[in-house]
Amino acid sequence: MTTKPLKFEEACSKYAGVGVKGISIWRDAVQGISAAKVKNCLKENGLTAVSYVRGGFFPSTDQAKRKAAIEDNLTMLQEASEMEIPLLVIVCGADPGQPLQTSREQIRNSIGEILGEAAKLGVRLAIEPLHPMYADTRSAITSLKQANDMAEYFNDETLGIAVDVYHLWFDDGLKEQINRCGRHNNLYAFHICDWKVPTTDMLTDRGLMGEGCIPVKQIRGWMEEAGFSGFNEVEIFSERHWALDQDRFLADIVDAYRNHS
Amino acid sequence: MTTKPLKFEEACSKYAGVGVKGISIWRDAVQGISAAKVKNCLKENGLTAVSYVRGGFFPSTDQAKRKAAIEDNLTMLQEASEMEIPLLVIVCGADPGQPLQTSREQIRNSIGEILGEAAKLGVRLAIEPLHPMYADTRSAITSLKQANDMAEYFNDETLGIAVDVYHLWFDDGLKEQINRCGRHNNLYAFHICDWKVPTTDMLTDRGLMGEGCIPVKQIRGWMEEAGFSGFNEVEIFSERHWALDQDRFLADIVDAYRNHS
Repeated sequence: MTTKPLKFEEACSKYAGVGVKGISIWRDAVQGISAAKVKNCLKENGLTAVSYVRGGFFPSTDQAKRKAAIEDNLTMLQEASEMEIPLLVIVCGADPGQPLQTSREQIRNSIGEILGEAAKLGVRLAIEPLHPMYADTRSAITSLKQANDMAEYFNDETLGIAVDVYHLWFDDGLKEQINRCGRHNNLYAFHICDWKVPTTDMLTDRGLMGEGCIPVKQIRGWMEEAGFSGFNEVEIFSERHWALDQDRFLADIVDAYRNHS
Repeated sequence: MTTKPLKFEEACSKYAGVGVKGISIWRDAVQGISAAKVKNCLKENGLTAVSYVRGGFFPSTDQAKRKAAIEDNLTMLQEASEMEIPLLVIVCGADPGQPLQTSREQIRNSIGEILGEAAKLGVRLAIEPLHPMYADTRSAITSLKQANDMAEYFNDETLGIAVDVYHLWFDDGLKEQINRCGRHNNLYAFHICDWKVPTTDMLTDRGLMGEGCIPVKQIRGWMEEAGFSGFNEVEIFSERHWALDQDRFLADIVDAYRNHS
């Protein structure tokens, strides 16, 4: 999604070309491509599949929609399994028509509904706490503390957490919560980008590392101290960067990764 | 500021006309109007001056700017005193060029610098924690917990807190922190509006109570349980509402206040 203008196969070969070793795959990017072809494309380019994006969106005031969301997540787990992607990222969801606490309970119940199947398929789940500015419709889980509480409630190795600096950088308890997450072996993914000053769009104005005010290196250090040794995933949604030539953008990403993360 | 298109005198008479009993005054709204005239206008319209807006913006990587901010806050305290406004709202500030923790220390030092003068002038200060989406440049204080910590550090009746539902509604510890704030007699102001779904601008797309997903009535209940008995101030920054006829907007505000707060 970081290089949204590129088709999946293009992205894979260009990533390999600049030395990127892994990729998280958004569902719509591989729509209509067989699992065998996806696996082959990854293999040919020496890319590790990091995660499948994005499950979740569980809460709703409408029971039929909650049920449909669970079905859809089970389908995504099946798809991930077929492509041999080991992790499904969960953007938990929220329904502005009900209290956040109700949405959180529905999230917990829904995770409970899919956890067994995830384990059976060998696909783990990562709860991604989102920035509070997305609490209306995207996630009732708005802090790493809440995500830790949820993961520890289940205490199941199939369930962990995705830490994204964009959503959590301002939290004065972040170091402590990353440590806690590591102690419980729940650090499953790490996403980096930057918070631009000013940020002109709530969804698609993320910055390259170094373009903003997030202490990415410091947070990466906390992740490593807490035992995380997975991929540092550059996840940038940016109309500005998507409008560039994507080879140029990829070169900028590599540069920013080397110097500011 | 809620009725930004209206001049100060117009706002006062129109507020009185719809039964509003108090007003918080932004500095630029009374630029060039004498304190005597401001006081007279309030008196004629039966309006209580709630607060003067907005002091703060203390942190900077530049020491000269930090000093200038303190001077400016002292001037605002003087202005508030002359207009007999009993409270200065503090938007604490943040400098994206330094860690949030550094900004918080500068905020604490700066509050310490002006607290004595505030007490002498009989003007209290209210720290307003802001939404984390403003952590880059507007406030390193992004939670009621941090504001409580700061107020309790000084433990001075001149310093309290302004609770704004827009900035804090998603916080799962909000009820507890409002209670804590009340126990320490630090509930100095209460601002209401709503979070629109979707919100299309980070600054000027606030909604009328009932237009969004904030449980305003519930939070107001927590404020009252915690001992707050001051004004419930409608604070809406909205290009959409500012574009309306402001008499119509004022009628909508009164309606929303009666039905959704």
